[in-house]
Amino acid sequence: MRRADGPDLPDTGDASSAARERVKIASYRDGAWRTSDDTLAVERALEIHVAGAEPLITMRTPGHDRELAAGLLHGEGVVQTAGDIVYLRHSPDEPDVIRAMLKPAARARLDRIERNTLATSACGVCGKPSFRAPEPRRGDPATGAALRIEPGWLLGLPDRMRAEQGVFETTGGLHAAALFAAGGDLIALREDVGRHNALDKLIGRALLEDALPLDRQVLMLSGRASFELLQKAIAAGIPVVCAISAPSSFAVDLARRFSTTLVGFLRGERFNCYSGARRLRGD
Amino acid sequence: MRRADGPDLPDTGDASSAARERVKIASYRDGAWRTSDDTLAVERALEIHVAGAEPLITMRTPGHDRELAAGLLHGEGVVQTAGDIVYLRHSPDEPDVIRAMLKPAARARLDRIERNTLATSACGVCGKPSFRAPEPRRGDPATGAALRIEPGWLLGLPDRMRAEQGVFETTGGLHAAALFAAGGDLIALREDVGRHNALDKLIGRALLEDALPLDRQVLMLSGRASFELLQKAIAAGIPVVCAISAPSSFAVDLARRFSTTLVGFLRGERFNCYSGARRLRGD
Repeated sequence: MRRADGPDLPDTGDASSAARERVKIASYRDGAWRTSDDTLAVERALEIHVAGAEPLITMRTPGHDRELAAGLLHGEGVVQTAGDIVYLRHSPDEPDVIRAMLKPAARARLDRIERNTLATSACGVCGKPSFRAPEPRRGDPATGAALRIEPGWLLGLPDRMRAEQGVFETTGGLHAAALFAAGGDLIALREDVGRHNALDKLIGRALLEDALPLDRQVLMLSGRASFELLQKAIAAGIPVVCAISAPSSFAVDLARRFSTTLVGFLRGERFNCYSGARRLRGD
Repeated sequence: MRRADGPDLPDTGDASSAARERVKIASYRDGAWRTSDDTLAVERALEIHVAGAEPLITMRTPGHDRELAAGLLHGEGVVQTAGDIVYLRHSPDEPDVIRAMLKPAARARLDRIERNTLATSACGVCGKPSFRAPEPRRGDPATGAALRIEPGWLLGLPDRMRAEQGVFETTGGLHAAALFAAGGDLIALREDVGRHNALDKLIGRALLEDALPLDRQVLMLSGRASFELLQKAIAAGIPVVCAISAPSSFAVDLARRFSTTLVGFLRGERFNCYSGARRLRGD
């Protein structure tokens, strides 16, 4: 068995430590607030520098980064066998950089894909001109700053969203995003196999109505809160984002930087608030 | 209120009809097979042709396509207000094509993003040179054709995967992908905030060991089965793909085209088989 390594550093190994981050959060349960610790899945950019080519950048949970780089290059049709790789290794002292050299034939295949850009249903990252500091373009720390929302009102959002999810009911296969007037009615709900599409549709609807920014509205997401979803929400001026499931660490970072209220694990009589709890606590 | 339309066609409206597709499947429950109908969420490419620019292509569930196009262009920082849009409409007789013209300033912003290509954690589409016919590059209808697997063995995979998911246990926020030897042991499990990353890591691991194709292995996915995941699995030669949740319509199409066994809703004592049931039924 041949290994596709030149001189190499050890891989970061299992994802157990670098993949988690502890944060202080406010949790709400059965009508009472408490402060607690929570563990987030880490989401951070990995740069893949193939010698002589533009770097590829992907968000990922740290760990097994060499495997990720190899698999990504395989999935794109660039690397077909281990023999296509001259070396593939971590950059010394740069935990988020992989450096690789490919054989000429594989290198030529990489050039071909680099000439083509596609948007995608599943992410909001593709084609962005700058990645290291993904700044929301219409973010404003003051947006919706005075907004106050009753925690009890939030608790009802998942059921209200589910009641409108026509396609999910029959297929079990769609993500949903819904906009609510703060403290009030459901304004619109969109569904899509791609979670970013559902949000793009909601924001696009508002844009076509010239109704941006959405600074009096609350966004409800059917799944997890990734940083791309937060970025889109902040760019649209949405002050409160709620998700049924967990946020990533980068989503929490973004929310805190832009004073966005970020709620996760909104289920039953409880939720966690990762950022901007003042809009819910009234303090 | 100003609307960002020139002369326009009606939007496709709600996603209720075009968003679903009926298929015949084999379902397994409590030890017995039956044939039944199932409803899938549709996943199909939308082309966004901005006058004078390369088309953007995104996978999506049909419906509210104008909103999606507007929201995607907003999310990328290209369109900031409705006033940036001269027109944005469906192409006559082409249900999967949106045509748009932007004001010069917005058009110039689009040019800037088109010069940059990024890979992404969340999709396997970005940067692909051809999209209309996304062909797995190492797919082979004969791969693993003779493989036979006991349905009862499949039923145990979700628990076995979950038992290995260290980070998920503490964060609730990671996707997982696991490879099992057909009928046997867990070979490797990877977790990531990006579902495609978890699979890329698994396939990358095999590639670095020069162990491709994986034609005696079974892939288990923690969430839904999108077409990109199927594409990556087929490209790596994996004959059997199982998911806890639903597949999309395009994932089923791909699986059928490449004789891949595709199992969804693998939970408790039951699952649905959308393609390649002969490997499980022994017929």
